Amino acid sequence: MTSRDLHRDSLFIRSCYREPVERTPVWVMRQAGRYLPEYREVRAKSSFLELCKTPELAAEVTMQPIRRFGLDAAIIFSDILVPVEAMGIPLDFNPGPILSKKVSTAEDVAQLKLPDPLTDMSYVPGAIRAFTSAMPEVPLIGFAGAPFTLAAYVIEGGGSKNFAETKKFLFQQPKVARELLAKLTDTVSAHLWAQVDAGCCAVQIFDSWAGQLSRDDYMDFALPYTIEIIERLKVKNVPVILFAKGVHACLPELARTGAHVLGIDWTLPLDVAVARTEGKVALQGNLDPCELLGPVERIERQVQRVLTEAKDAPGHIFNLGHGILPMTSPDHMGAFVEAVKRLGIRRGAPATEEAVR
Amino acid sequence: MTSRDLHRDSLFIRSCYREPVERTPVWVMRQAGRYLPEYREVRAKSSFLELCKTPELAAEVTMQPIRRFGLDAAIIFSDILVPVEAMGIPLDFNPGPILSKKVSTAEDVAQLKLPDPLTDMSYVPGAIRAFTSAMPEVPLIGFAGAPFTLAAYVIEGGGSKNFAETKKFLFQQPKVARELLAKLTDTVSAHLWAQVDAGCCAVQIFDSWAGQLSRDDYMDFALPYTIEIIERLKVKNVPVILFAKGVHACLPELARTGAHVLGIDWTLPLDVAVARTEGKVALQGNLDPCELLGPVERIERQVQRVLTEAKDAPGHIFNLGHGILPMTSPDHMGAFVEAVKRLGIRRGAPATEEAVR
Repeated sequence: MTSRDLHRDSLFIRSCYREPVERTPVWVMRQAGRYLPEYREVRAKSSFLELCKTPELAAEVTMQPIRRFGLDAAIIFSDILVPVEAMGIPLDFNPGPILSKKVSTAEDVAQLKLPDPLTDMSYVPGAIRAFTSAMPEVPLIGFAGAPFTLAAYVIEGGGSKNFAETKKFLFQQPKVARELLAKLTDTVSAHLWAQVDAGCCAVQIFDSWAGQLSRDDYMDFALPYTIEIIERLKVKNVPVILFAKGVHACLPELARTGAHVLGIDWTLPLDVAVARTEGKVALQGNLDPCELLGPVERIERQVQRVLTEAKDAPGHIFNLGHGILPMTSPDHMGAFVEAVKRLGIRRGAPATEEAVR
Repeated sequence: MTSRDLHRDSLFIRSCYREPVERTPVWVMRQAGRYLPEYREVRAKSSFLELCKTPELAAEVTMQPIRRFGLDAAIIFSDILVPVEAMGIPLDFNPGPILSKKVSTAEDVAQLKLPDPLTDMSYVPGAIRAFTSAMPEVPLIGFAGAPFTLAAYVIEGGGSKNFAETKKFLFQQPKVARELLAKLTDTVSAHLWAQVDAGCCAVQIFDSWAGQLSRDDYMDFALPYTIEIIERLKVKNVPVILFAKGVHACLPELARTGAHVLGIDWTLPLDVAVARTEGKVALQGNLDPCELLGPVERIERQVQRVLTEAKDAPGHIFNLGHGILPMTSPDHMGAFVEAVKRLGIRRGAPATEEAVR
């Protein structure tokens, strides 16, 4: 029995497919992370990249929040920049990512390798196998960065306040930029395939910086590459979650990408997202991660608010609207998960054509 | 003749009031700034704060972009944190703002002074008078930060990536936060009044960080204070531009604040903004500042795109969607302004009730 079949009836996967569920499922971006003392204990003995590259350790930290909170899905511990390193760009974290070779010319792009995910990044499938054999009952999500976001990292050599270098590159050398984006599309597609083959039953694509683009530039330099990846994933028959953070102007277009679920950041209320996606996709989100810094009674009220805003979504997976913050108290995270499980709603919408396929 | 009367028929003021104009007016946020060699020359001899506090110098740098580009409006050279310093919080820039005393308790809030704009910040009206006597023919915009944005600065002690401290304060100490916001509302209102009295014929309110809040939190902790300021400005009878950067979920509410113009950042296309504000307000914006880093032919195409997206707005003031970047070539800024003047459209919409008041 494949992992896909095993989890087909989980709350999480049924919600992705907009099928009836008994209650709203919940998981949290960066749920395996610095806010957990047991994570910091493992992390104290290895660098962040060593953790990513040691399957047993990556699987262990992936399991930690599941053990503590009983979340409805896990996401494999890794980083969106792992494939970029495999393409030949030296990577370090301090604590943000530092790429010591910037891409700025056609020659830089030509020199980038197309990595083989099974040999050049074998530790990711390795970690996935280690997790699924230890916790076969938990749906595991694989992930990758979208081509635009990865391009931004390799052009800037790290994060950026305004992505001026990235945009200058796109505007001044659009042809070279498209070659870079195409190479990243190939790399990411292969990486996601390998994660599904190793045992992930869903994948999430993170376009973390796409919200920095105008609609015009997003439609030109970002969306087509994301669509290509989703297209290539069809053969793998798993739900795809697309989190294009801050891309609010293109929701109708995002709903037509073929993604089953759209991740929504906390600044776009889910009732607005439902209206603009016309019920075509399930939604994932979207409590402000900072809300977990407030009092527990307030967290409960805010969970109720988000559930109410999401009530007309054809599927809803509760999550934060961005990664959980390192200064979050694990107790508040626990109160949050408990509140979603207690207040989460039954969804009885009739199965759609896609849901019964 | 007051400055308000003198400029009543300018392209800029008529556009604010949604009256017919011969062509789209244009000015640029941070148009007096580091991208200009003549600015860097003045700045080499004084600190940023000295520049703000010396009326002749502030007026001089305010005039520089007008001389070079013939823009349709000037904005007085100052900083949104000037009133915060006058409230008793030591301020420095390096180059971003550093506030050496953070506000974190009720006592901190109680200790904040309510400054008298004519004595504690007399250099701002002084700079305005110096500008208007040197360039009486140019409409001059006064400005201030919105209470939420100023609160974020004084709580964080500067800028922030995620405003976690600010939100924690709002969520854990809502009553104290409201006292802080009320004090900032009083300070900002008086500061804007003084700027109009000194000769500004319009004002802009910058809510630079409001887009970091959920709709729920924006409606609770930000919007009411901004509305109060706009309400108090009515007696001054000048157009108010509200730039709540990134607040896309509340456009219908922003259109009902009493502001005459809404500033729109580059990630929200103006056609979408027109639809969501139902033609109730004029719009200002919104080319991505990074577009000025691209080739001149591309800048012209992008200007045309924005003009087309704005065509159904009842009033449109062309601007960038955020401040011009220091690495921008003045030649590209020149090409941008020239393109707006050449391609800008005639607006002949029948005068509305408000426009003919």
